[in-house]
Amino acid sequence: MSIQYPLIMVNFKTYSESTGANALAIARYAEQVSKEYGARIAVALQPADILRVTAAVGIPVFAQHVDAEKPGSHTGYVTPESVKEAGACGALVNHSEHRLRLDIIEDTIKRCRSLGLLTCTCANSSLVGKSLAALEPDMIAVEPPELIGSGISVSKAKPEVISESVKAIRSVSRNVRPLCGAGITTGEDVSSSIRLGAEGVLVASGVVKAKDPKAVLIDFAKALHA
Amino acid sequence: MSIQYPLIMVNFKTYSESTGANALAIARYAEQVSKEYGARIAVALQPADILRVTAAVGIPVFAQHVDAEKPGSHTGYVTPESVKEAGACGALVNHSEHRLRLDIIEDTIKRCRSLGLLTCTCANSSLVGKSLAALEPDMIAVEPPELIGSGISVSKAKPEVISESVKAIRSVSRNVRPLCGAGITTGEDVSSSIRLGAEGVLVASGVVKAKDPKAVLIDFAKALHA
Amino acid sequence: MSIQYPLIMVNFKTYSESTGANALAIARYAEQVSKEYGARIAVALQPADILRVTAAVGIPVFAQHVDAEKPGSHTGYVTPESVKEAGACGALVNHSEHRLRLDIIEDTIKRCRSLGLLTCTCANSSLVGKSLAALEPDMIAVEPPELIGSGISVSKAKPEVISESVKAIRSVSRNVRPLCGAGITTGEDVSSSIRLGAEGVLVASGVVKAKDPKAVLIDFAKALHA
Amino acid sequence: MSIQYPLIMVNFKTYSESTGANALAIARYAEQVSKEYGARIAVALQPADILRVTAAVGIPVFAQHVDAEKPGSHTGYVTPESVKEAGACGALVNHSEHRLRLDIIEDTIKRCRSLGLLTCTCANSSLVGKSLAALEPDMIAVEPPELIGSGISVSKAKPEVISESVKAIRSVSRNVRPLCGAGITTGEDVSSSIRLGAEGVLVASGVVKAKDPKAVLIDFAKALHA
Repeated sequence: MSIQYPLIMVNFKTYSESTGANALAIARYAEQVSKEYGARIAVALQPADILRVTAAVGIPVFAQHVDAEKPGSHTGYVTPESVKEAGACGALVNHSEHRLRLDIIEDTIKRCRSLGLLTCTCANSSLVGKSLAALEPDMIAVEPPELIGSGISVSKAKPEVISESVKAIRSVSRNVRPLCGAGITTGEDVSSSIRLGAEGVLVASGVVKAKDPKAVLIDFAKALHA
Repeated sequence: MSIQYPLIMVNFKTYSESTGANALAIARYAEQVSKEYGARIAVALQPADILRVTAAVGIPVFAQHVDAEKPGSHTGYVTPESVKEAGACGALVNHSEHRLRLDIIEDTIKRCRSLGLLTCTCANSSLVGKSLAALEPDMIAVEPPELIGSGISVSKAKPEVISESVKAIRSVSRNVRPLCGAGITTGEDVSSSIRLGAEGVLVASGVVKAKDPKAVLIDFAKALHA
Repeated sequence: MSIQYPLIMVNFKTYSESTGANALAIARYAEQVSKEYGARIAVALQPADILRVTAAVGIPVFAQHVDAEKPGSHTGYVTPESVKEAGACGALVNHSEHRLRLDIIEDTIKRCRSLGLLTCTCANSSLVGKSLAALEPDMIAVEPPELIGSGISVSKAKPEVISESVKAIRSVSRNVRPLCGAGITTGEDVSSSIRLGAEGVLVASGVVKAKDPKAVLIDFAKALHA
Repeated sequence: MSIQYPLIMVNFKTYSESTGANALAIARYAEQVSKEYGARIAVALQPADILRVTAAVGIPVFAQHVDAEKPGSHTGYVTPESVKEAGACGALVNHSEHRLRLDIIEDTIKRCRSLGLLTCTCANSSLVGKSLAALEPDMIAVEPPELIGSGISVSKAKPEVISESVKAIRSVSRNVRPLCGAGITTGEDVSSSIRLGAEGVLVASGVVKAKDPKAVLIDFAKALHA
């Protein structure tokens, strides 16, 4: 499953609206919008929901987290191998709601790369984004944690976070795609993020908790090419 | 999915031999042996493998771990809801390879119970088993960590751990099923565990890494009723 | 340093008012009130403050936390040995603001006992208190977390938590002293806690953040024998 | 307490030989060698030992770890404020034996800087060293974990780790001092580390567990200027 940019990554979190059968419903919307509007939409799922979605829907599926544990005598971890076998093509790493030790971030990126899985690491500040760039994940999504789920878009409230992050990440590596996120709810938020240099957005409640998730995805998809 | 005792719980861990398509193969053996020998066999899976197995096999499936996070704005956790929707009927909690804070063990047991999921908590000593009994999980599996994966059975090397654990757990609660584990590889290990008072065994490499997992399961199943 | 009951344990936390030179000032008040009123007052300190206080003040000093790491190649941990050498006679274990894995609580209690250090474990509920009783620490302080620092005393808001905890702890072990805490600010809170069966109280902001910490300690000391 | 380079940083870890009264004895040797040979020697101590040493010895003292928790309602943490009041001038951060979340490393560096405390962050690889450089700590000590305590010096076994780390760190920031460590036991190890570009060494067992720690320190001190 190849990824193209700019990318809309929808994080399903552990919301009831996007777990189990509900996860499949929203993933189907994402597939429809993806096809109809030529938009690149990926979804980040709980591990128990991955197979349900990949068996039915043809869009890139990420795990929301993977552990660095290897195949072997380890109990209760989510290995990169297990999510790959279930059909995932990548993983979020170090989301603000699941922060990791620096050495484990390095391990996880290497483990995923060795299996052909993409990594989208998350940063709570442009400085942490710059730090992550040294580890050369595929993507770095910078999200000010105080805006996550706020409905106030980073592109409006703190546009300088996006432009500074893009610059800081690029100063360390040219191989990493900078994304941004937090509070994104409208197509205008998406298009201004991309104008500020982001190669994609990371969204969650803006889609998942919307009254009409498909309508929001259409709004986002149109904005990608605006 | 009701559970009956004495129970053989097979922990698939993150072994290659029991991940993805391989998980399904061993689960099918468990189902066959379960039916042919009237044995009660459950399997504990990685979250990404649960749906693959429950969709095809009619035996009790446990998650190897669940997080206490609730539905909502949480990323990268394995909620009890998600494994329930995938068809699991319970979860291991606090396995020696994934130990938890005491307050989180309490939370996890309550969260699972409220959803109708069974909990099999694990203890590294009879004292910890006694401590867990206060929280009234459905099962407590006591496993001396130094014997896990050793091929030396707890029932041979430390039979007093089993009998003491059963006594300690029962002194605090009569509602909890005491299990034992570590190093169990033969039917004789299973039958002596049950003679010592355990209502089941927790096994992993003894089955999963065996040359012929089905033959081992048959050996165990026969021993249950010996 | 022998401990007698009922006991007032003052947790200095990381408050500015009770760090460094300020820690010594409040500890001196505790010593004065201890002598003048025949009260048993202990203080729980940050590790860097222990020697400063024990070198100058003759009251029982506890660490607020110790790690289970042993002497050896471990960096950045607070070993029981180090706080003992600095003059501490015990440690809080598993405070609500520093919760621990169950197996580590067991280890820490054993490590402390082997060095002659007392342990006061903390529980966020009577059920967790019962669970801790199996591990036989010297004391168990049950504190509903939502009342910590609230100024609303557990003895007023949830007196049943105290009486249930005392009963639950005693049902598992007669060797453990039940304490209570959360929101205690007056002598009346202290005396009603003791009437409900507690053998002491764990207090923090009620003393440390008071305008006149010594006056509060005097109020508490008088209540011990009321 | 100003720091000059090249620097010998002696990590006392939790070794019995360098805890409590023993910590003071080795710190006195360090002070003597420091004065007699004009060497820059700092020591990294357990928090409970800091005041004992700073009260008696005039060399730079670091904490082996500090938590990012602020003054307030937090129990059982080692605040930067508390080690500063005890006389420390800095802290190790993210030692291989006490690894931290990336966002907490960022927080800890900021917290220390705001109090005038120096930070020596530790990295298990040159890539992690590069990542840390983005956060601009005062020093970054790169130590291959498999050589720590091995007696096999990084400067002999993996000299390229030192030169690559220096280069990688400098590519991100010119304000950070690169140190190296792991297996350093002789003056020759120290001088070759410095020739490879390190501005100091981080040592532990090579000094602390030596039959004659003072003789080793003299050997190191002479090598600094060789």
